[in-house]
Amino acid sequence: MVLIFVGLGVWDEKDISLRGLEAVRNADIVFAEFYTSPLAGRRIERMEKIYGRKIIVLKREDIEENDFILEHAKEKNVVLLSAGDPMIATTHVDLMLRAVENGIKTEIIHASSVYSAVAGACGLQIYKFGRSATVSPPFRDVISEVPYETVIENRKRGLHTLLFLDINMSIGYALNLLEEIERRRMSSEMDAEMDDELVKSGDRNEDDCDMRAGGMIGGISDVLFVGIARVGASDQVVKADYIDALRTYDFGDPPHILVAVGNLHFMEKEALIKLADAPLL
Amino acid sequence: MVLIFVGLGVWDEKDISLRGLEAVRNADIVFAEFYTSPLAGRRIERMEKIYGRKIIVLKREDIEENDFILEHAKEKNVVLLSAGDPMIATTHVDLMLRAVENGIKTEIIHASSVYSAVAGACGLQIYKFGRSATVSPPFRDVISEVPYETVIENRKRGLHTLLFLDINMSIGYALNLLEEIERRRMSSEMDAEMDDELVKSGDRNEDDCDMRAGGMIGGISDVLFVGIARVGASDQVVKADYIDALRTYDFGDPPHILVAVGNLHFMEKEALIKLADAPLL
Repeated sequence: MVLIFVGLGVWDEKDISLRGLEAVRNADIVFAEFYTSPLAGRRIERMEKIYGRKIIVLKREDIEENDFILEHAKEKNVVLLSAGDPMIATTHVDLMLRAVENGIKTEIIHASSVYSAVAGACGLQIYKFGRSATVSPPFRDVISEVPYETVIENRKRGLHTLLFLDINMSIGYALNLLEEIERRRMSSEMDAEMDDELVKSGDRNEDDCDMRAGGMIGGISDVLFVGIARVGASDQVVKADYIDALRTYDFGDPPHILVAVGNLHFMEKEALIKLADAPLL
Repeated sequence: MVLIFVGLGVWDEKDISLRGLEAVRNADIVFAEFYTSPLAGRRIERMEKIYGRKIIVLKREDIEENDFILEHAKEKNVVLLSAGDPMIATTHVDLMLRAVENGIKTEIIHASSVYSAVAGACGLQIYKFGRSATVSPPFRDVISEVPYETVIENRKRGLHTLLFLDINMSIGYALNLLEEIERRRMSSEMDAEMDDELVKSGDRNEDDCDMRAGGMIGGISDVLFVGIARVGASDQVVKADYIDALRTYDFGDPPHILVAVGNLHFMEKEALIKLADAPLL
């Protein structure tokens, strides 16, 4: 019959659209998944009460490893609920493509997404965001440099960067990781430069190395960040500051997200001061 | 009292969230504006019927040139409805900042936005989009080169580009504009190079100029585009192709939007073939 991907929007059970609610109420069976994007302010019981339907929460393997949903969708009208705008998760794109291969009709019902909501919450202009990236926890002491590089590359073009944090990761922890990436890159650059020096001059010049390290300032500590906690909630927190101040700021519960700010239009500046209590820029 | 910016989402009156509907129903007065973003599938009468409230549609001057809304918001609970996610329009950020200056509480109720909806409709990964741009009609024969430059710059980094089209502009017209920009840039580059040649060699070498022009191929005609009409509507059209084929494709009524495709992940390739009928890539 049909498989409808219904977005639940940014925060809680009230961020679904009227169109989404209608689809839920008309469906033969209603599934939901919260492993690609967290529950945030949602509670299954409240969703079931407001939507008037029983909701079956699926595990990763029910979506990625078997055709559980597709088997249902061959004979029934199936809704799959997920947080945010549903097609942001590649898992859902993959499921949709498998549905198409199986001759099952599909539909997307859009909802609010952190992608547009975060820009609005900070008063930053969305067309000035470059590509986004995710800050992931270290794996066996390896830290992905992608978020750091994305920030630096976007800033060279004056662009803002949206940084997603791993589920339950705090803004403070993410900022520490970004700083640690920079520290490691600096020390490996310094090592390389010192090796060059040794080859050239035949002795090691500590002063020179210090000067070069000093020359690296202009890195992450010069970046204005905006931390946003619980986007779209009534207790949403938006605070702009530099890394040293922001690291210890109390944002409360996750989900947390970060924006690394690029060049600012005068209205963006004013917005960051008035909406995000930014230090005078 | 309070000024609440309520997003209406991507397509019609059913794309508002339950939270947005609740705010509309609890407001003392409900305004709407459709000059920053079009009505799309919405009809005021249907909105009034479904939301159960009278809606007052404002003109640009009521929002940008006077304090009409703020005067109301000092004493009443005011809702301002607009298409998409409300803070995407800088006009609304400006209004919010003026409200804050006047000591008026503000609130944002998010909704679906073309920013995330378009990526999902094509099956493209949103984190691979670079900055976006708008294609505007020529003004006194001057065509803004920004959208063209944005596509080229993003493509150098393998990134996709979302191109907004001016209200009522068709995909075919926008593609012609992009091609015209390239043509003008090529001919001015050729002129500059010919001048160089004249200085260096003392005579004009047409063959050389032709070869250089040939060397420019690898421009816009090599870019895969996705055209999307009426995002989020039941008659939404999504079609991927190169400029020559896409230019004459019948997308039906506006709003239209374009994506210039960068490097493709294998799942994105599959999605463009299956969801956007892309030529085999």
